[in-house]
Amino acid sequence: MKTLLKNVKLVNVFTETIEETNVLIDGEIVAGVGTYYTSEDADECRDLAGKYVCPGFVDGHIHIESTMMTPWGLANACLPKGTTSVVTDPHEIANVCGVDGIKYMLQASEGLPLNVYVMLPSCVPATMFDESGANLFAKDLEELYSNKRVLGLAEMMNYPGIIYGDEATIEKVTECVKKDKVVDGHAPLLKGRDLDKYVSYGIQSDHECSSYEEAYERIQKGQWIMIREGSAAKNLEGLHKLIDGPEYQRCVFVTDDRNPMDILTEGHIDNIVRKAIALGKDPVRVIKMASLNAALCFGIKRAGAIAPGYKADILILDDLNKVSIKEVYASGKCIYADGQISEIKKPLIDKKLVDIVSNSFHLDTLTKEDFYVEPKGNKCRVIKVIEGQILTDEVIEELDFTKNNGINTDKDILKLAVIERHKNTGHKGIGYIEGIGLKEGALAASVSHDSHNLIVIGSNDEDMMVAANQVIEMGGGMTVVKKQEVIAKLSLPVAGLMGINDAATMAKDNETLRSKARELGVKENIEPFMNMAFVSLPVIPSLKMTTTGLVDVNQFKKVDLFV
Amino acid sequence: MKTLLKNVKLVNVFTETIEETNVLIDGEIVAGVGTYYTSEDADECRDLAGKYVCPGFVDGHIHIESTMMTPWGLANACLPKGTTSVVTDPHEIANVCGVDGIKYMLQASEGLPLNVYVMLPSCVPATMFDESGANLFAKDLEELYSNKRVLGLAEMMNYPGIIYGDEATIEKVTECVKKDKVVDGHAPLLKGRDLDKYVSYGIQSDHECSSYEEAYERIQKGQWIMIREGSAAKNLEGLHKLIDGPEYQRCVFVTDDRNPMDILTEGHIDNIVRKAIALGKDPVRVIKMASLNAALCFGIKRAGAIAPGYKADILILDDLNKVSIKEVYASGKCIYADGQISEIKKPLIDKKLVDIVSNSFHLDTLTKEDFYVEPKGNKCRVIKVIEGQILTDEVIEELDFTKNNGINTDKDILKLAVIERHKNTGHKGIGYIEGIGLKEGALAASVSHDSHNLIVIGSNDEDMMVAANQVIEMGGGMTVVKKQEVIAKLSLPVAGLMGINDAATMAKDNETLRSKARELGVKENIEPFMNMAFVSLPVIPSLKMTTTGLVDVNQFKKVDLFV
Repeated sequence: MKTLLKNVKLVNVFTETIEETNVLIDGEIVAGVGTYYTSEDADECRDLAGKYVCPGFVDGHIHIESTMMTPWGLANACLPKGTTSVVTDPHEIANVCGVDGIKYMLQASEGLPLNVYVMLPSCVPATMFDESGANLFAKDLEELYSNKRVLGLAEMMNYPGIIYGDEATIEKVTECVKKDKVVDGHAPLLKGRDLDKYVSYGIQSDHECSSYEEAYERIQKGQWIMIREGSAAKNLEGLHKLIDGPEYQRCVFVTDDRNPMDILTEGHIDNIVRKAIALGKDPVRVIKMASLNAALCFGIKRAGAIAPGYKADILILDDLNKVSIKEVYASGKCIYADGQISEIKKPLIDKKLVDIVSNSFHLDTLTKEDFYVEPKGNKCRVIKVIEGQILTDEVIEELDFTKNNGINTDKDILKLAVIERHKNTGHKGIGYIEGIGLKEGALAASVSHDSHNLIVIGSNDEDMMVAANQVIEMGGGMTVVKKQEVIAKLSLPVAGLMGINDAATMAKDNETLRSKARELGVKENIEPFMNMAFVSLPVIPSLKMTTTGLVDVNQFKKVDLFV
Repeated sequence: MKTLLKNVKLVNVFTETIEETNVLIDGEIVAGVGTYYTSEDADECRDLAGKYVCPGFVDGHIHIESTMMTPWGLANACLPKGTTSVVTDPHEIANVCGVDGIKYMLQASEGLPLNVYVMLPSCVPATMFDESGANLFAKDLEELYSNKRVLGLAEMMNYPGIIYGDEATIEKVTECVKKDKVVDGHAPLLKGRDLDKYVSYGIQSDHECSSYEEAYERIQKGQWIMIREGSAAKNLEGLHKLIDGPEYQRCVFVTDDRNPMDILTEGHIDNIVRKAIALGKDPVRVIKMASLNAALCFGIKRAGAIAPGYKADILILDDLNKVSIKEVYASGKCIYADGQISEIKKPLIDKKLVDIVSNSFHLDTLTKEDFYVEPKGNKCRVIKVIEGQILTDEVIEELDFTKNNGINTDKDILKLAVIERHKNTGHKGIGYIEGIGLKEGALAASVSHDSHNLIVIGSNDEDMMVAANQVIEMGGGMTVVKKQEVIAKLSLPVAGLMGINDAATMAKDNETLRSKARELGVKENIEPFMNMAFVSLPVIPSLKMTTTGLVDVNQFKKVDLFV
């Protein structure tokens, strides 16, 4: 099948110009670009009357699980936004299901019109305090590298491990480099000697930069900078000066973590492109960063441009500056037009893998007593949530254990539980949290970084029990409980992380969860399920809760609840 | 071993700036770049007092055989010129020895301080008229791709084969693309639809462009442009405008064919860098093209820059604009300093391969009668050499066969013989050539593109016989004979293409051959052995001689000597 796109203004990312020309598509690839192509060369000829065409956008670093959608769901959501390729790190599902989780993501993204490339999770579990569903070493990743869509090793977050010479950590990097694949980085604020040491192992990128100076040093030192605009972390504002100099040649765009509502309403990579243009950057240069640069960064050949032999991932734009996407061609087929996406076939996945990710919850029904704290004093270390941040503080509070087992909603002191759910070990960490604002009821979720154990926050043990059991019953998900009744829920049956619905349904269900949580008192500046999900990540200061109790992240050691 | 290069002006090819800093080398790689490194960080600390350092240069396309040196010989010659990496196409030796010739080149370049990457010859033999030593199909190349230094398929010269759908030709390209390797191009003056077709197979570069317009179209269409400055073809003058726009990001520098004398006197890639700077280009940008760009073009990771984790191929320059190379570090070791190159160990090569390339001449001693032409008329097609070009004309001359078997030095009509030497088939093409100027004696050589049969030009059959037998006796080489005496000779025992001596000796011997040929009458504007070497290449118009007789290249068919 040959299609001619006639009378287009082509965004040429090689010459950084706009050409008035015709584009001939043959099957999955661009066959030619030139005014000499006519309707006689094609089976179908479309006169685009001066519309812009540009290469499809690439998200250089995403955790698909963070969209709460499967790869199929994401494809449906991001193709209309012009993202035709993503490089995903299945870090979350790997923490739950190990190598099988990665294999599931590979199969679940095979043959989609969205090109899904995979970077292998480098830090499973994230720390030694975590009780995740799997422990991945270099040897476990070995077999996965042979998949053509596996480009390398994902964000090496354990930069202390690299700098201080942890052998198992370094082995993962060197094995990847030996295979001539790429290694992504994640090392916020690292600089100078430490940065040199870290980068010298071949770690080629970073997506955690927030300031121009931080990013510039990394570019000087050979790294690619991934300019991130996620749902929480937004770095374009701080980094946009990179686009003004030759440094732009070493930058790509990424979303990292972006929720379905933001994708639906604000967009995906197109949102970053639009923002950069609004900041006064040249649209052609910005589009090059969103396409060709990512292909160069990862060594993806014959992609990221509209040129003969290149994959025909093409966007048709009504307006270049507004990046208003009218149509999307993926591998030569028009997948999105006039606000409608074509039906996307769900990939076939081995039953064994489907069974594994669909049965990732291994936890018996809980009782009220499971949430009880045995008082061993009255002064406790309490996690204090900070509005708008995933950082937390540690505060020492005097709790009254004569009432409601220490909970005091008047003082905004709630109970928090993190319960191991991968191997039914019975491990649980129970403590207290302040700053959420909940006046009654409870929240529970199976999304809790990075090990994704069951996390529950509540105003009383009964509601916590009901919320927890609802998540267990769904085999993963999120819920809001009031007076022992479930008033909102979202099922995430795939590893407890992803739902099977499309973005609109997911976004609506999420919105219901959020508004119901607010009805129970959650403050305006607290994202209930997002803030809760990071309370269990013991790499972000200061005090966090794990399945085996509190961790003082600054001291990197476990601490007791009672002082 | 750690070495600190202190107080340097570093040419940073990422930021395109010059930084005053220190560079720490650890073993083969750059460990760090920063003013915070002191002598305490290193075993050896060198204060460079403000000298410039820049990444080693990369030659993106070279036929090492054309330097008449082995890879070891080239390393000795080009490292002092700042070339620390070459991407070679062993097309010539493959035409003589097939896959074994390529294996020989791989082994002969293993472990050298010069990084030698290999592109597999795509067109052996160059045409169906050629009688080469081997015929290479896609399946023959298969096993070679597994070598890590094999980056892809070399210049696909058979562009008509690609455009008109020759299956065996296309198979070579698609097999390489399937392996996710790169394919270089060679398609002078191709444009429009034909160029689109050719490029659409994934052919990613071209080194034959001579005009800005020609090159610009290719960059528009996604190709990399290799700006060539060889001994014969010089394209920088015609292409330098590419360096002024964003197109520079898609350009690299190559020599293609460059003789030892030119390397010694004018330089190698440094010569192109110098010329570009002299044309007013920014030295930092030009150095980036000579280093990082080539790494990006071929997907060579962690190379082409001075940054942590990058291979420590570093040049120390006295003067940036003059590119005066004071010292060269190759893989972290100082290999050249103060005009002296360190001794380079010769690579170990399998005896079997050495035997094959050292015994590539299969031809019995010739007699005077072997050069005799049986007159079948007196009007002959004669090859007319054009000064300064490798193109030839066809002229019809009336020859007097009563004297000297048709040779007439007064009219500058000499005899020409191309004798099959790979399989001792006895095939030979004998005819006449004009425009050389030889008044007496004969010239013979085993370098005759692309099949490298034995080629002889002479003023009489006896001298031709002596010259031919001298080349046979040497097992390959070049010679000048006068009155049946050898007055100059150069031994090329490796496949009849390469000598075992260093550049200075090779250049001196070449110069002797040239001057002795001139003494016998060869004209000023004729390069005797270079012009002779292209008389047998039946892809360059108009009339050429092969082992089976004359070929009319314009009609692409064999023609008789006698009209």
